[in-house]
Amino acid sequence: MNFDLNLAPPAFLSKILLSRDGPKSRPSVTLTFAQSIDAKIGISNGTQLMLSCKETFVMTHWMRTMHDAILVGIGTVLNDDPQLNVRHLPQPAEGGKPHHLPRPVILDKKLELPPSCKLLKNFQAGCGRRPWVIYADDSSLSSQESIEFENRRKELESAGAKLIKADFVSPNGYIPIETVLKSLYFNGVQSLMVEGGAKVIESFLSSKDVDRLVITAAPVFVGAAGVGYSLTSTTPVYKVVHKENIGKDTVLVLEVTASNEHSTE
Amino acid sequence: MNFDLNLAPPAFLSKILLSRDGPKSRPSVTLTFAQSIDAKIGISNGTQLMLSCKETFVMTHWMRTMHDAILVGIGTVLNDDPQLNVRHLPQPAEGGKPHHLPRPVILDKKLELPPSCKLLKNFQAGCGRRPWVIYADDSSLSSQESIEFENRRKELESAGAKLIKADFVSPNGYIPIETVLKSLYFNGVQSLMVEGGAKVIESFLSSKDVDRLVITAAPVFVGAAGVGYSLTSTTPVYKVVHKENIGKDTVLVLEVTASNEHSTE
Repeated sequence: MNFDLNLAPPAFLSKILLSRDGPKSRPSVTLTFAQSIDAKIGISNGTQLMLSCKETFVMTHWMRTMHDAILVGIGTVLNDDPQLNVRHLPQPAEGGKPHHLPRPVILDKKLELPPSCKLLKNFQAGCGRRPWVIYADDSSLSSQESIEFENRRKELESAGAKLIKADFVSPNGYIPIETVLKSLYFNGVQSLMVEGGAKVIESFLSSKDVDRLVITAAPVFVGAAGVGYSLTSTTPVYKVVHKENIGKDTVLVLEVTASNEHSTE
Repeated sequence: MNFDLNLAPPAFLSKILLSRDGPKSRPSVTLTFAQSIDAKIGISNGTQLMLSCKETFVMTHWMRTMHDAILVGIGTVLNDDPQLNVRHLPQPAEGGKPHHLPRPVILDKKLELPPSCKLLKNFQAGCGRRPWVIYADDSSLSSQESIEFENRRKELESAGAKLIKADFVSPNGYIPIETVLKSLYFNGVQSLMVEGGAKVIESFLSSKDVDRLVITAAPVFVGAAGVGYSLTSTTPVYKVVHKENIGKDTVLVLEVTASNEHSTE
């Protein structure tokens, strides 16, 4: 494939992402991230870590066209102010169908999303879909804090965000992934791409509700400033179903296997 | 290259490993290890972690023929009882030169090497080179412990080991890598391959005295039971100079760059 021309998505992506299983009670979930040789996926001070080469960056944009929605954590929005759209693809042929633009979804328990973020600005300018914000009620707020929370909610709604209140919060204050996926499915999302940041990736890696991983392995070390990830006892067993060198990077596609044990074969 | 026939070492290895710089005051050092996608290089309980596929396993044996000596930590000998020889290569042609057999070197501060280990047995049987054991005097030993230590030293010498006492031990009780390399160089070792285990790898990764890394990246997760490695502020900046898919694995060769900063490009 010729990524310099960017004419078509990599064949393996179309094959894997567009041939999904039958109906489920949640969206089909693709968790994707770039990592260094030392398996770092972020920088501890929140600095944006750009690991992908140009070719895998474009691949990520093709992947976005293949999902109904893209989910990121609020930390990523606060750090990187991303657009989550499909900017780096060739224009469709004259009269052709435009690229599918995915729905941005922000996991933002405390409603910290800035109304001035690019996701809302792009929506206001007609060049991005309405962002959805998944948040949670917090019963521990003082009455003053509750008023401020409500003001932020209204401000975000005025700026164009669709606010989705999680119907369940775990005892430790987190919105469970299951709850997030149920909400999105209820709102019509059939396929979800989870992009980051490090905390969201780590949570999804422990979830049984991920169908596949697309990992871009970049040939660099990040070192001591990097943030890694840990698999846990609840991480399902993933098996590499495709591996491809793209630009300087190696892309690995993994799918959940039926087996219950980690394979080191 | 055809690894099924194992007829020749991978071309990139010969090119990189046999074209070394001019003389130094220490051996030329190749640090090599296999890692999982989540950058694990061992298992926390000491269980042997076999990550390499057949093809990269054979590659490791070719690499052994290209170094004067192979160094491992005592933990690896206690856990795996390795042979550190070149068993999995094709027989040299009739009348041809046999494969170079590297010198086994064990970093064994407290002389815990079992006299019955395969390294000594192979030497006694004439099918392995004399193992060298680098140890250190410990002034904190009681007189009884000192007698036991001396007995172990004699027993290892009787079994065929060459004992090399480190001429310097750091205040925290470790033999510095610089001291190890100086001893080996003094004893005629011009090229050293460092194979493991996890602790030795981590120490060498923080050392400025490594010339290149050869990392076998296996397409599997190891997960929570795995042991990773950390780069530190003293880790030199490495740059990938070669990348090659070999069997199911990807082999990365990195060399120290002159630059002083980690690159995430």
